[in-house]
Amino acid sequence: MATLSDDEIRTALVDLPGWEPVDGAITKEYRLGGFPEAVAFVVRLSYDAEAADHHPDLDIRYAKVRVTLSTHSEGGVTSKDVALARVIEALAH
Amino acid sequence: MATLSDDEIRTALVDLPGWEPVDGAITKEYRLGGFPEAVAFVVRLSYDAEAADHHPDLDIRYAKVRVTLSTHSEGGVTSKDVALARVIEALAH
Amino acid sequence: MATLSDDEIRTALVDLPGWEPVDGAITKEYRLGGFPEAVAFVVRLSYDAEAADHHPDLDIRYAKVRVTLSTHSEGGVTSKDVALARVIEALAH
Amino acid sequence: MATLSDDEIRTALVDLPGWEPVDGAITKEYRLGGFPEAVAFVVRLSYDAEAADHHPDLDIRYAKVRVTLSTHSEGGVTSKDVALARVIEALAH
Repeated sequence: MATLSDDEIRTALVDLPGWEPVDGAITKEYRLGGFPEAVAFVVRLSYDAEAADHHPDLDIRYAKVRVTLSTHSEGGVTSKDVALARVIEALAH
Repeated sequence: MATLSDDEIRTALVDLPGWEPVDGAITKEYRLGGFPEAVAFVVRLSYDAEAADHHPDLDIRYAKVRVTLSTHSEGGVTSKDVALARVIEALAH
Repeated sequence: MATLSDDEIRTALVDLPGWEPVDGAITKEYRLGGFPEAVAFVVRLSYDAEAADHHPDLDIRYAKVRVTLSTHSEGGVTSKDVALARVIEALAH
Repeated sequence: MATLSDDEIRTALVDLPGWEPVDGAITKEYRLGGFPEAVAFVVRLSYDAEAADHHPDLDIRYAKVRVTLSTHSEGGVTSKDVALARVIEALAH
């Protein structure tokens, strides 16, 4: 699977508001209603991560959850990351 | 804490659509989007159960979660059950 | 997938202590350390249920979780139920 | 609540193997059996965080969970952090 160029990443994120590129990854911070909602959100998205066998970095900071996606085996962002970002974005709404 | 009479239970449930009395308890079946959503819903409401130190019976059937509340120490339905039903109802929306 | 006979079920459950046959299903009640442990146990096993696309009935009663497995499409117990029971039993230890 | 000095932190962590001080916080990385176990561990410890009204930073990296504790209102490590670290350490065993 090829990594995406910076231009391809930007294009892919156009309809994923809040998602942004960072070194070799894409990331978004979700703000939930509180800590219980943050944990429940992590639980909810974890099934899609398991189903895709692709596991985001998940950083819980009280009511906020930062999700960071990268394809480590490829050393950068691939279409797998964008696809899972899209799924997680749908869950958050 | 006194148990509520049948009339008091009916009155208490007027603004809790879908909740209904059953022998010595109140119950509602929530229908979620799928099994992951059902588990995440159980996780989410579990914090309120812990905070209230009042624990509903929770029956997961794929995408459905039946929540049943009773105050076992009093042998019936009390205002604690209605209060937690109200919290859970708010979470589901 | 063929349903198992009563004899086949009994044989299959020999090394699954606590699991027992009930009408068209197999079931076991797990006793955890408390309500948080019960919910965490449900979360943990839910990934295996999703991976197998086979979803047990899960009844949480404070620190107890009753797991009931049946293959509804076949109207009885199949090797899928026994396989998932085995996975859940391993998780509980 | 007073923050602990570096010496007091070191003393407090003596019987908490793997926990170590970092700028104004204490931290430990737990290694679980896999991603499902990591999420279930976060769920399990989250009840104690809620009960203590003290919420660690929780970073999930596949099978690893980094727990970082700090008392933000005091700008450093207090006995609340050590107490919650102790609870989490007990859960992990």
